[in-house]
Amino acid sequence: MEKLRATSNLRRSLKSLLNRRLSSGSDFTHFNQKRSFQTSFNWIRDYKSVGEVNAVQYRYFSSVSTLVQRNPSFSTLNSDDISYFKGLLGEKNVIQDEDRLETVNTDWMHKYKGSSKLLLQPRSTEEVSQILRYCNSRCLAVVPQAGNTGLVGGSVPVFDEVIVNVGSMNNIISFDKVSGILVCEAGCILENLISFLDNQGFVMPLDLGAKGSCQIGGNVSTNAGGLRLVRYGSLHGNVLGLEAVLANGDVLDMLGTLRKDNTGYDLKHLFIGSEGSLGIVTKVSILTPPKLSSVNLAFLACKDYSSCQKLLVEAKRKLGEILSAIEFLDDQAMVLVLHHLDGVRNPLPTSMHNFYVLIETIGSDDSFDREKLEAFLLSSMEGGLISDGVLAQDINQLSSFWRIREGVPEALMKAGAVYKYDLSLPVEKMYNLVDDMRVRLGNLAKVVGYGHLGDGNLHLNISAPQYDDAILEQIEPYVYEWTSKHRGSISAEHGLGLMKANKIYYSKTPETVQIMASIKTLLDPNGILNPYKVLPHSINP
Amino acid sequence: MEKLRATSNLRRSLKSLLNRRLSSGSDFTHFNQKRSFQTSFNWIRDYKSVGEVNAVQYRYFSSVSTLVQRNPSFSTLNSDDISYFKGLLGEKNVIQDEDRLETVNTDWMHKYKGSSKLLLQPRSTEEVSQILRYCNSRCLAVVPQAGNTGLVGGSVPVFDEVIVNVGSMNNIISFDKVSGILVCEAGCILENLISFLDNQGFVMPLDLGAKGSCQIGGNVSTNAGGLRLVRYGSLHGNVLGLEAVLANGDVLDMLGTLRKDNTGYDLKHLFIGSEGSLGIVTKVSILTPPKLSSVNLAFLACKDYSSCQKLLVEAKRKLGEILSAIEFLDDQAMVLVLHHLDGVRNPLPTSMHNFYVLIETIGSDDSFDREKLEAFLLSSMEGGLISDGVLAQDINQLSSFWRIREGVPEALMKAGAVYKYDLSLPVEKMYNLVDDMRVRLGNLAKVVGYGHLGDGNLHLNISAPQYDDAILEQIEPYVYEWTSKHRGSISAEHGLGLMKANKIYYSKTPETVQIMASIKTLLDPNGILNPYKVLPHSINP
Repeated sequence: MEKLRATSNLRRSLKSLLNRRLSSGSDFTHFNQKRSFQTSFNWIRDYKSVGEVNAVQYRYFSSVSTLVQRNPSFSTLNSDDISYFKGLLGEKNVIQDEDRLETVNTDWMHKYKGSSKLLLQPRSTEEVSQILRYCNSRCLAVVPQAGNTGLVGGSVPVFDEVIVNVGSMNNIISFDKVSGILVCEAGCILENLISFLDNQGFVMPLDLGAKGSCQIGGNVSTNAGGLRLVRYGSLHGNVLGLEAVLANGDVLDMLGTLRKDNTGYDLKHLFIGSEGSLGIVTKVSILTPPKLSSVNLAFLACKDYSSCQKLLVEAKRKLGEILSAIEFLDDQAMVLVLHHLDGVRNPLPTSMHNFYVLIETIGSDDSFDREKLEAFLLSSMEGGLISDGVLAQDINQLSSFWRIREGVPEALMKAGAVYKYDLSLPVEKMYNLVDDMRVRLGNLAKVVGYGHLGDGNLHLNISAPQYDDAILEQIEPYVYEWTSKHRGSISAEHGLGLMKANKIYYSKTPETVQIMASIKTLLDPNGILNPYKVLPHSINP
Repeated sequence: MEKLRATSNLRRSLKSLLNRRLSSGSDFTHFNQKRSFQTSFNWIRDYKSVGEVNAVQYRYFSSVSTLVQRNPSFSTLNSDDISYFKGLLGEKNVIQDEDRLETVNTDWMHKYKGSSKLLLQPRSTEEVSQILRYCNSRCLAVVPQAGNTGLVGGSVPVFDEVIVNVGSMNNIISFDKVSGILVCEAGCILENLISFLDNQGFVMPLDLGAKGSCQIGGNVSTNAGGLRLVRYGSLHGNVLGLEAVLANGDVLDMLGTLRKDNTGYDLKHLFIGSEGSLGIVTKVSILTPPKLSSVNLAFLACKDYSSCQKLLVEAKRKLGEILSAIEFLDDQAMVLVLHHLDGVRNPLPTSMHNFYVLIETIGSDDSFDREKLEAFLLSSMEGGLISDGVLAQDINQLSSFWRIREGVPEALMKAGAVYKYDLSLPVEKMYNLVDDMRVRLGNLAKVVGYGHLGDGNLHLNISAPQYDDAILEQIEPYVYEWTSKHRGSISAEHGLGLMKANKIYYSKTPETVQIMASIKTLLDPNGILNPYKVLPHSINP
């Protein structure tokens, strides 16, 4: 009975589809995390000594408190340093103002806060080079910073590291319309690049909720994933070249603009995803696909996770080349979104569904693509994989459907305390972890699962009225052990930062971590670049 | 007049298209280079000392003869070594037979020949580990070898290096039909993987002329490109994980099976394209897309290179998501193919065209895809970009069109001496080099241009009755300087091997090469892995 009703609901939607073509790119009004995710709770830190901070204990990120000691081999800023930087960069790019420092010392979730006394704003690669050469000679620790939208405490200082923010380096250097290759500086805001490319008839192969604030240098340094990875692949495939400044100030020009280049080791990959710990990315060359004119989005309900998974397999096979995103959220996520976000409503008439799946297609022919998607949806519904569903009929509906999926993090923040885990797992096992966590936690907290179904990337979030050690003890290390046992990754796309530096062994072997540490020592012998992050503190304090 | 005729020719072809669906994968009968490219000419080497070879001079690869000295720090094999290996691998996997050694000492073009006295055939990672641990302790140099189909002398010894061939490690370990992730050993022949996946309803994201012989470990180690890169991207995007054995025998398990994993530096990329000089790849995990049922191929003529280039831009935009290959050859290449290859004919009625372009589409719906391709071809013809063209009407035509493009290297080999260059260049400038070379060489030699238009990858080949220093002096270093001046790559997909190790500075900066050399030293302090290759002899003898 429900199936019949649902089918007729979908059919009605299909029949009433507007003929208009939706353009991809800037017409998407993705939610901007940074602007809207301002939260009221403060970081919980125990300062071991007041006045001069030299050890910080983060309580709620790990079942065993993580005590981070300031590396005593790092120097402390003095007035000569300030004079040097003012001479190099000019007064206005050497920031000591407390209010401005407050902002760049704090991550956007207000979970991590450093105590840097200095923000530097270089305007060129040469300036970045001079800064690092000087800091290296003085053994001054440095935090590279771009949009500061990270989720793992990677882009803010832990202690008094000098903040080098690349946001003033925001020029587009070149764009080749024949090959679709964009070359730009690291400080370009992702949304600005998306708009620029849209005007040229191209798209960025990367799209994130944080696009209004995040910068391409940060995206590359953290190997950002996002919503379209299922279509365009990772930055390791799309970044054709980059320029990076090493700790000693040497500039590595790997800024190739070629799809193919097999001349020696492809060193740029070391800098993609190393979170600024091996060098500061200053320029990026990226391959961008042509913009395709037809965008369609379906918002679907499934009765169980098994159906979501089967739907994924079918979508990859039947939509093949036009599939551009396949995302999911569970009923707990939907309840939170509907309760906490203004103006959001469930597009399906009944809210009794267990899972919701968004399937987006992008292609070059609107009528072909829509016909293909409609045929797929009808066969999936007839096959029982979908219980209900609607197709976006205009750009407003398209935005409102995306708002539900992209609004989950914001809703979670508004709901109270949230323990966030970003995990890669085999798709077929992914949701078992959510079920297991519910059993473990019982009534202690709500367990929410959502994420990038097409990439096997689960965002496991545990929501509670307030942070509570009893809850944390139930979550960690269980969640990491569970992930490790299933050969998953404890960080699919967020990186390790400070939060998970000591958790690396859950996903990497000791031999591999040892090679990473050797490469860190090779490229940054004094360890000045983004200390305390990425690598475990035992081998990289 | 010609345009009218051509249009009507194309229209006839379009109208008579068969309705059958062509399956991708094993139905493609790509030409197998290894089996058929047996050539009669021999390598030209000057042995500096006869009997024990300790220096080899390659005459025709560079205008200045490259003299390679055997690194005296390497040991020479003794009977204890042989006994050790026999104890480890068993008698039959320790090969000293001269005939078998002749084969593995020689590359398939018969340009490079080593004088190794020992071939080892390990059957497991553990055996590879034991071999390398022993060789490292004894300072015995090693050449890792897979299918030995390389073009730059990378997979055969230069002197008496021990050959470690992974061909016996050819098991498929797992295949996940939900995610399309294949895990297999390094010695799997590419064509076997293609067939296996075809049966599972998936495709390899890599296809090469040499697929009948080349092995996935070699493909990954050389970052092979091939025909479908324009669709599926490079191996840096598709290889999800790998296992590699370092020079000291340590096994690096980076065999992840996840699309996303941001836990530390992504070390696997160091091994992709490092030509076995940093470690021996023993297992590979690779993301494979679902097989799509509709394959179409158009064989087109263009009046000039500018039209080819415009056609590329239009094809990327209008065929977008179904475009799977766009290749080109010039009239000189076509003349050679028609003259030297049996049973090959020009599918277009007149052979007066200057350029030929193959456009292949792969999609999920035959009628949609064909309609889209036909509309594109008709508009391109009406716009004057195409002078003539035919669409493959069945699988035999499809194979015969591909045979023309893939037969160019074989035809060149049959025509006499050939100087081969594999260059990445900005698409719009790519063919200028061919024109410039024709001016330089005049009547001395024929200059042939073909390659992967969609990737900006030109195969520049210079064909002459015999090798001649006067010709070589006109080509080198001019071709490398030209490429470097246009920020191209002197090796798009073939690698550097022995042939271009000393040419690396044409494409990479000294700072970058220095970091490469440091990483080489870090991972292989004795330099036993594939010596004399990839890095310049001045810093890595």
